[in-house]
Amino acid sequence: MEKRIVVAMDAMGGDYAPVETVKGAVEAVKELNVDIKLVGQEDVIKAELAKYEYDKDRIQVVHASEVIGTDESPTMAIRRKKDSSLVVALNLVKNGEADGIVSAGSTGALLTGALLIIGRLPGVERPALGTCLPNKKGFSFLIDSGANVDCKAKYLEQFAKMGSVYVENVFGIKDPKVALVNIGAEKEKGNALTKETYELLEQAEGINFTGNIEPRNIPYGDADVVVCDGFVGNTILKLSEGLAKTIFDILKGEIMKGFYKVGAMILKTPFKNMKKFMDSDEIGGAPFIGLKSLVVKAHGSSNAKAFKNAVRQCVLFTEADIIGKIKDKI
Amino acid sequence: MEKRIVVAMDAMGGDYAPVETVKGAVEAVKELNVDIKLVGQEDVIKAELAKYEYDKDRIQVVHASEVIGTDESPTMAIRRKKDSSLVVALNLVKNGEADGIVSAGSTGALLTGALLIIGRLPGVERPALGTCLPNKKGFSFLIDSGANVDCKAKYLEQFAKMGSVYVENVFGIKDPKVALVNIGAEKEKGNALTKETYELLEQAEGINFTGNIEPRNIPYGDADVVVCDGFVGNTILKLSEGLAKTIFDILKGEIMKGFYKVGAMILKTPFKNMKKFMDSDEIGGAPFIGLKSLVVKAHGSSNAKAFKNAVRQCVLFTEADIIGKIKDKI
Repeated sequence: MEKRIVVAMDAMGGDYAPVETVKGAVEAVKELNVDIKLVGQEDVIKAELAKYEYDKDRIQVVHASEVIGTDESPTMAIRRKKDSSLVVALNLVKNGEADGIVSAGSTGALLTGALLIIGRLPGVERPALGTCLPNKKGFSFLIDSGANVDCKAKYLEQFAKMGSVYVENVFGIKDPKVALVNIGAEKEKGNALTKETYELLEQAEGINFTGNIEPRNIPYGDADVVVCDGFVGNTILKLSEGLAKTIFDILKGEIMKGFYKVGAMILKTPFKNMKKFMDSDEIGGAPFIGLKSLVVKAHGSSNAKAFKNAVRQCVLFTEADIIGKIKDKI
Repeated sequence: MEKRIVVAMDAMGGDYAPVETVKGAVEAVKELNVDIKLVGQEDVIKAELAKYEYDKDRIQVVHASEVIGTDESPTMAIRRKKDSSLVVALNLVKNGEADGIVSAGSTGALLTGALLIIGRLPGVERPALGTCLPNKKGFSFLIDSGANVDCKAKYLEQFAKMGSVYVENVFGIKDPKVALVNIGAEKEKGNALTKETYELLEQAEGINFTGNIEPRNIPYGDADVVVCDGFVGNTILKLSEGLAKTIFDILKGEIMKGFYKVGAMILKTPFKNMKKFMDSDEIGGAPFIGLKSLVVKAHGSSNAKAFKNAVRQCVLFTEADIIGKIKDKI
């Protein structure tokens, strides 16, 4: 029998842990070619697991007595809480007992812990966080979406290559279009970083570089891989969330005024379809790429479906040997 | 009789010039304490002016034979087209024949020309472009929204001060809340530039610095003056435009499918109110602040109302002696 891929899940991370983490693990082993190691407080996890029917051989509970909160200093937390669900899960990956890890806990602690415990791939300057940003045609893979706030052109070149490999192999987009975030379409536009990066990307082999993308065009879906430094990327990501929410809030407020409830009822389906536009559960999380194994940061508000899809990313990543492909490119 | 303020208008700049520029000038002299110098092709402007009744003493036509296109290299265009409407208008300001200038032409040419011809105020490191970004409560003044793509902390400190003076005096917001765009709320978050800027703003006198603002909170309207470098600012501005347009397009597409037209009819008013949320005509343009006179960049698609309101900004700016107030602060 083929050996199954093993994914470590931080069972205690996220707003709805352990209920949704455990449910997600059960759904994952039912649907995917994967075994799960659920890491966290054993009694709590086992009580949750008792609710479900599943193949008991495929989910293992690994006890960890501590939990890292989202408000703790990442470096301190990783150093001090050796028996936290996150640190224990990262060590499973480090020791070869798991192929990848999913956590919906503190982003800072996950990134710091992953760098310290799993470590970066030789040749990778800075691992980067990739996030699937919804757009009119589907989504763009925004890399770096927040891990590296001060970048050099060389880092951005690697983000472009790693993002390209990831999107092609995990999301099945052939020869993905790679674009650089810039405040003008022309090559000579932008700041010192984007100008230098443009030169590198133009000469880079093995990626389909299509030039600059202006922020106004990102939502139209003109690029598959959208490259920028982590400060700009995080700004794009968070502003998109805040603005979409604000537009909905205002529209909702307007509709609820006066006689518009009938209209709102009739428009229920279009609104529901609209909300799907911003649904991140289908993707399941943001991969932190450039380490020796895959680390997926699931959203804090992840449900079971999101966790299952985060696990799916780990499975596809491992099956496609993305580590090997990244090594080849950089 | 009190001497009226004089504003030079680039009559040939903008998508709807000279029809809307001329109409805007006529509306401005009717409503505001201002005289207008309309700069551009005399015969064309006079033909437009002939459509209106107004006090002939208050609008003067200044002939300029050339026009700078939006696709021309700014530096070249300013240097070569000495008799363009923009260059002639800027020279009126330089020579003291006008107090301020409004143009809806090429942003690059306007910024370059203003720096070269009008010149910066002594002590100002970098003049900055301020844009009123709509939010849930009204708008935030985003500075710098695109003039300076590579910044030092010292520049951002000045943007904060100039923006604060402008918003207080032109828009009448008492003791405006000034916040720094950052990817975390805490002081120690961000990149090298924001960390250094935070220190300066914390110690700066005469501004109401409220700390960092995360991009997701910008649309909620938590700050009156939102400070960042021009690359990040332009990204925020353009992404907001693109995303709002995309959300409307998707919603419209959904509504037009199937049986939703009735709902759309009923929802006409809320949608109209919603669109007002993004209406920039009320403001009339983006001031370029830190020069010896006020320069207002009107949006390319400006209508008469927008031009009139851009002129209003020049009037309030001059009346409130913002030049003097900026000199005091920096």
